[in-house]
Amino acid sequence: MRPELLISSRTRSTPFSSRVEACGVKAYSVYNHMLLPLIFRSLEEDYWHLCEYVQVWDVSCQRQVEITGPDTQKLVQLMTPRDLSQAELGQCFYAPLCDETGGMINDPILIKHSNNHWWLSIADSDVMLWAKGLATGFGLDALVTEPDIWPLAVQGPKAEELLSRIFGKEISRILFFRSRTFNYQGTKMLVARSGWSKQGGFEIYVNDEELGGQLWDELFAKGEDLNVGPGCPNLIERIESGLLSFGGDMGYDTTPFECGLDKYVSLDADIESLSLEELRTRKSKTKLIGIVIDRKVNLIDKRVFIGSNVVGKITSDTWSPRYSAFLAFARCELKHLEDAQNLHVKTTSGEVSAWITDLPFDFETLGLTGIEEGRSI
Amino acid sequence: MRPELLISSRTRSTPFSSRVEACGVKAYSVYNHMLLPLIFRSLEEDYWHLCEYVQVWDVSCQRQVEITGPDTQKLVQLMTPRDLSQAELGQCFYAPLCDETGGMINDPILIKHSNNHWWLSIADSDVMLWAKGLATGFGLDALVTEPDIWPLAVQGPKAEELLSRIFGKEISRILFFRSRTFNYQGTKMLVARSGWSKQGGFEIYVNDEELGGQLWDELFAKGEDLNVGPGCPNLIERIESGLLSFGGDMGYDTTPFECGLDKYVSLDADIESLSLEELRTRKSKTKLIGIVIDRKVNLIDKRVFIGSNVVGKITSDTWSPRYSAFLAFARCELKHLEDAQNLHVKTTSGEVSAWITDLPFDFETLGLTGIEEGRSI
Repeated sequence: MRPELLISSRTRSTPFSSRVEACGVKAYSVYNHMLLPLIFRSLEEDYWHLCEYVQVWDVSCQRQVEITGPDTQKLVQLMTPRDLSQAELGQCFYAPLCDETGGMINDPILIKHSNNHWWLSIADSDVMLWAKGLATGFGLDALVTEPDIWPLAVQGPKAEELLSRIFGKEISRILFFRSRTFNYQGTKMLVARSGWSKQGGFEIYVNDEELGGQLWDELFAKGEDLNVGPGCPNLIERIESGLLSFGGDMGYDTTPFECGLDKYVSLDADIESLSLEELRTRKSKTKLIGIVIDRKVNLIDKRVFIGSNVVGKITSDTWSPRYSAFLAFARCELKHLEDAQNLHVKTTSGEVSAWITDLPFDFETLGLTGIEEGRSI
Repeated sequence: MRPELLISSRTRSTPFSSRVEACGVKAYSVYNHMLLPLIFRSLEEDYWHLCEYVQVWDVSCQRQVEITGPDTQKLVQLMTPRDLSQAELGQCFYAPLCDETGGMINDPILIKHSNNHWWLSIADSDVMLWAKGLATGFGLDALVTEPDIWPLAVQGPKAEELLSRIFGKEISRILFFRSRTFNYQGTKMLVARSGWSKQGGFEIYVNDEELGGQLWDELFAKGEDLNVGPGCPNLIERIESGLLSFGGDMGYDTTPFECGLDKYVSLDADIESLSLEELRTRKSKTKLIGIVIDRKVNLIDKRVFIGSNVVGKITSDTWSPRYSAFLAFARCELKHLEDAQNLHVKTTSGEVSAWITDLPFDFETLGLTGIEEGRSI
């Protein structure tokens, strides 16, 4: 028997927890001190369903750090090396937060409500404490809080159709990484075209506990013919799509460059950011690479080797049923990589060679042809 | 089947994880992004064993926030309203950390290595981010890190005997909440008389991954005749003992006074602390109280009532096999309490009346006589 997760008031439930349980959740993680469902049927069944239909995800654990007040914009810009000076109302930004050494603190989606009102929709670290510490220390006129907002993601190719049945045709006019406010049962809720998959979809920023339950039920009632189902961030899908997880694939000791997030660092911008100066000169020591093995393997441990050298370690891995390949992210020491095209891992059937590739995976170049449907559905 | 905990590289394992698994851990929690074992045999069996023998606990999740540099003492004092000016080398302090409004950020054990070197052995929130944010904002000359230190607690009445077999008789000379450095296999490790139970014991601050495994094995080998076993913070024991859990029983929105931690706030001290001024004037709105019911109950929900008013909510609860009573902590609105001596809760067998009492529980005054041994062992 695999160990269960013991849930206390310290591991917070969400407005959707009773629904998630009723749907037969099989495994959780804890994320920002909150329950995050991770498996419903099986990783593989959840994966195929996500890619073909539409799923409702309880991602309440993407907590909102809310910053308000005259110095809001200043504080948000201090925290990230990404230039936000041209941000428009309702726009969403994927942005690394970095400390004064260039190390990453988190990788939230930033949402601009107004110059004096931003949300940071965060990954798994207590960004509120960082933002509040900075605001207090620098004496900024900015209030940092973590209000109860419970994002509900609707992901998959049928997501737009499903949401338009609830919020109307206006839904389709929301561009990628833009948000709009919709009226749900008399309450205004933000809806953004975003989400932690590459299957398309939206995130609804639920701000009323009771309405949240109603909305969940309505999504399932109106989506029956679309084969709507419960879902969650899916390990297989996110690795195939090259989506990184903060705390696993990247962390306090890595810079955005070491995570392949170069395009989210505005090196030449004339902005006041804590980390930018250091990021202009700090040398990368490691690199997050992709690893591909063309068959199923059982790893003995997470180390990766070139010759007899341990050159790094796998941070996330999965079997891809679509490409019939073992896919992984690995953090490696840059000095060992150079022109290396292969490395090897230790498996229960001995040493196995693996291709090294950039992220996100380019399956065509890798010569991997994906199948369109899972046999398990 | 209860949902399992899915473990990824984001949910960190510890140097003891393989041992914990081999001992048959049944349930985990996640604490500071790390595995925290919570049940081995059953809550009740673990409880009686802890009270009678000695247990080895993997509490690696009590991460150490290390502060070094000339402004160390200044930064640590800024963070807590407890006067640390008389702190001696090796001394440990239970101390609330509070923000500028008096709200709690964490409740660590502070350990003074020297004026320029402190550890904060933290509860479940990313204190490193708070400390680093303050240090950066205030421009303090203090380096804030979270080194890999993995506390191993040895708790229970036979703990001293067991540790003296490994570290020698010197162990018994460590006073409560004091620490000393011991040599283990050529490596210096800090040992403190402390731990999250009231059964007596020590915490060993393991600083070497491999030695950690060796130490675990040696504790089990040398403690066989003491009936040493695997253990963990035990819900029953900690509620009976009145030990609070940050994030559940107390949090960002509560002051130390609202958690009964009055004696850890040095109201009259002449110290530079972020929160002290606010704490001198801020009025308490809530109070954490004890609740006792003299029989087993199954709660429908966590609300507590006086008359028809919801006056608060249970934050932790347990069945006490020793006192044959249902014990709980509840956070209540102060204005509703006044001279109330009873409240009621909703259970599967209807409304049930409960005594209100101060914390920690005073079982003698409550007229509860504890039994000395569990029938289950």
